[in-house]
Amino acid sequence: MSKSKGSRAERELLAMFWENNFAGYRAAGSGSTPLPSPDLLVGNGKRYLAIECKSLKTKAKYLEQEQIKELIEFSKKFGAEPWIGLRFNNIGWYFIQPNKLKKSKKGSLVASLKTLKENGLTFNELIK
Amino acid sequence: MSKSKGSRAERELLAMFWENNFAGYRAAGSGSTPLPSPDLLVGNGKRYLAIECKSLKTKAKYLEQEQIKELIEFSKKFGAEPWIGLRFNNIGWYFIQPNKLKKSKKGSLVASLKTLKENGLTFNELIK
Repeated sequence: MSKSKGSRAERELLAMFWENNFAGYRAAGSGSTPLPSPDLLVGNGKRYLAIECKSLKTKAKYLEQEQIKELIEFSKKFGAEPWIGLRFNNIGWYFIQPNKLKKSKKGSLVASLKTLKENGLTFNELIK
Repeated sequence: MSKSKGSRAERELLAMFWENNFAGYRAAGSGSTPLPSPDLLVGNGKRYLAIECKSLKTKAKYLEQEQIKELIEFSKKFGAEPWIGLRFNNIGWYFIQPNKLKKSKKGSLVASLKTLKENGLTFNELIK
């Protein structure tokens, strides 16, 4: 996935949150700081969500364990729910919490459309 | 103030928060989104602070009303305390909430070292 495509997906999702009474924003370019920072951070005064975003052309993707670990650590420290948001081409967004992800035989975390449909939430379910 | 100097001040402040058990991050470049986004957003699971940062060479500065208005709106929607962080050269950081700022005769908001010493907080007071 190109960087610009990832940014587009993040901006799309951020706009969806704003339209649904959440405020929030995108992290500054990850190159500019050694500190962990999930792609999006949104809140509505009751809930706070830290979200790592991925845009997929295929129906499954391995996730970097280090990135997921950082998402969890950041969320715990900040006081937010950790979420992974996956945008499947021509299908849309699904959201899942890190502990619901499946592991491959080699221990890698896998996000597949099948898993997301079973254990994930749509955007409307997420913000309910 | 140059943009890079502003970024340096933001990074310095962000590091101070991380060292004191807050997580948080800097907003992506304001040019990339039409949505309001304060410079920093930090939290520790109990408190959430949205901070507009300024670095001053002089002892007083006029603040853009529109920026302060956006800070307040963002904070209310997200669920954070709105703060303005001012870094005075060779003196350090002071923090003030928008409603404590003084107005000039023409209605502009003014942040001066005098006002900040009287009505503002130091970093250690802020995070107490």
